[in-house]
Amino acid sequence: MTTSRFSNSAASLDVVGIGNAIVDVLVQTGDAFLESHGLTKGAMALVDEEQAQILYQASGAGLETSGGSAANTLAGLAQLGSRAGFIGRVRNDQLGEIFSHDIRAVGTRFDTPAATSGPSTARCLILVTPDAQRTMCTYLGASVQLEPEDLDLSMVRDAKVLYLEGYLWDSPAAKRAFIAAAEACRDSGGQVALSLSDGFCVDRHRDSFLELVNGHVDVLFANESEITSLYGTDSFESALEQVKGCCQVAALTRSEQGSVVLSGDQRWDIPAYRLGTLIDTTGAGDLYAGGFLHGYTQGLELESCGRIGSVCAGQVVTQLGPRSQASLPELVRQHLS
Amino acid sequence: MTTSRFSNSAASLDVVGIGNAIVDVLVQTGDAFLESHGLTKGAMALVDEEQAQILYQASGAGLETSGGSAANTLAGLAQLGSRAGFIGRVRNDQLGEIFSHDIRAVGTRFDTPAATSGPSTARCLILVTPDAQRTMCTYLGASVQLEPEDLDLSMVRDAKVLYLEGYLWDSPAAKRAFIAAAEACRDSGGQVALSLSDGFCVDRHRDSFLELVNGHVDVLFANESEITSLYGTDSFESALEQVKGCCQVAALTRSEQGSVVLSGDQRWDIPAYRLGTLIDTTGAGDLYAGGFLHGYTQGLELESCGRIGSVCAGQVVTQLGPRSQASLPELVRQHLS
Repeated sequence: MTTSRFSNSAASLDVVGIGNAIVDVLVQTGDAFLESHGLTKGAMALVDEEQAQILYQASGAGLETSGGSAANTLAGLAQLGSRAGFIGRVRNDQLGEIFSHDIRAVGTRFDTPAATSGPSTARCLILVTPDAQRTMCTYLGASVQLEPEDLDLSMVRDAKVLYLEGYLWDSPAAKRAFIAAAEACRDSGGQVALSLSDGFCVDRHRDSFLELVNGHVDVLFANESEITSLYGTDSFESALEQVKGCCQVAALTRSEQGSVVLSGDQRWDIPAYRLGTLIDTTGAGDLYAGGFLHGYTQGLELESCGRIGSVCAGQVVTQLGPRSQASLPELVRQHLS
Repeated sequence: MTTSRFSNSAASLDVVGIGNAIVDVLVQTGDAFLESHGLTKGAMALVDEEQAQILYQASGAGLETSGGSAANTLAGLAQLGSRAGFIGRVRNDQLGEIFSHDIRAVGTRFDTPAATSGPSTARCLILVTPDAQRTMCTYLGASVQLEPEDLDLSMVRDAKVLYLEGYLWDSPAAKRAFIAAAEACRDSGGQVALSLSDGFCVDRHRDSFLELVNGHVDVLFANESEITSLYGTDSFESALEQVKGCCQVAALTRSEQGSVVLSGDQRWDIPAYRLGTLIDTTGAGDLYAGGFLHGYTQGLELESCGRIGSVCAGQVVTQLGPRSQASLPELVRQHLS
């Protein structure tokens, strides 16, 4: 298969992502903390500013790093050498400056102007337990101020793939922006990729997601809990049957069991890569999508796309935080040549 | 030796530190970046806000974490179970909030009010090269606004040890605060500990430091480049001869060669502990001082104090950033029992 996968193969960007622009606060903690604050392990909970403050005050010392699901994916793509762009909203505050610096520093184009009033830059308190699971409490702050008129549609029209995170659906304004961008991308010959983001997020927006997946999405990313939540089933295999044929490609991740890639009647089972001690699963799904789309926009076979995703996810779980501190191109070369 | 080491052994705090309240931005980079920006590897350079911005914009994606030399030492002390207090100035901004949260989260008392106007919270861009060496560019920001009248001398009078970082001497106002605190501490029966901080910092303030070391400091911390810079010699052994007897205790660190502790005519050579792969030396000296003072205020033998310092330093160099992500009390138990 070659780049003929895209009718706009002369596009000057490989992937443009839209997502919440978030700074992560990573705190290592125990299960008792999650229980005493009524948090569901492994999930993302939305919190308001006051709840965010209460949880932060109760938490241990943290490590701050740029995050945001789609932003992590685009940072991964840029690290791999893809031409990447990101659209999302920060406030003109110190955390917004950190987010903007970090995504540009890896080579991602990021032009969305910072909000000059209103809530502060979005923060996500990520509680990492000794089992390497991450539990997230997100204060969306300025990121929900992304309006359709803020979208740089020229950037979207100039990309092979538009990547959208499901979390955007928690913000009504961003959701409208999201649909406008998807239409613009497809009109200009690009493809639309969607990540379902989180099982509870799927619960909140099941009907919208089902409608999208049935005909408006070319490449779907989901993990086991998200895809089973989408189809209201306990069985991964049954969910696979249902998603088959709904979009061109579905890449479904299963943690240490690797991933399954579906396209038409074809299925590839991709192994997980263990590249070190498991420390923190934050960003694993994001980096899988980044690696996959890097291969996809280069026109590689779907199995190779899945393997690149697997290597990138396998790296990011060996460190604290969702952006790779190691050289992803080098790891991909080592494990895929 | 017992706690009779202190005439104020009923003090309610073990150690109070005064230092610059800094948030670190850690960036992994190569030697070429240091060269092209005229930075001296391993040293700390002071930069103004504009230089800080230029260097940050040119740097790769970062990881943010609370830092500050004395603050790292006090955080280590608190993690080990010592009763610790910190005095330093942040601005009431997002980075100031992060600094304040993190130092309190490990159990350090921190009451200095945040500045409500003037420069932003201090930031230190820490460039970590593949040899694990760290090169620092510090914008002192709000931290230089620490005036003598801001000092909580009641806290200082209620501590067994007052710990001062040499970096404070780069700020005239803080330097005055520093001397007032040292006098208050000694008047109430406590001891004064000083870290020389950095070879270039010693160059800038050699006469002041010599005067302090000769009679005003009880416990001196320095590494090889600092102690040789203080006495204008190339020979570590010659510097040892000169510092001997100037203060009650001198603890002199030499990276992978361990440390030498001097008291009167006695000398202990303490080995370095290798607790994992060397990643980033940021905080090694700070954590050595923290471990040492933990033992010292508990009345342990000086050799044990040095060993605890060595274990803490040996841990922090196996991770990115200057505050231990592992349990220090557990490591000390493992390696010293």
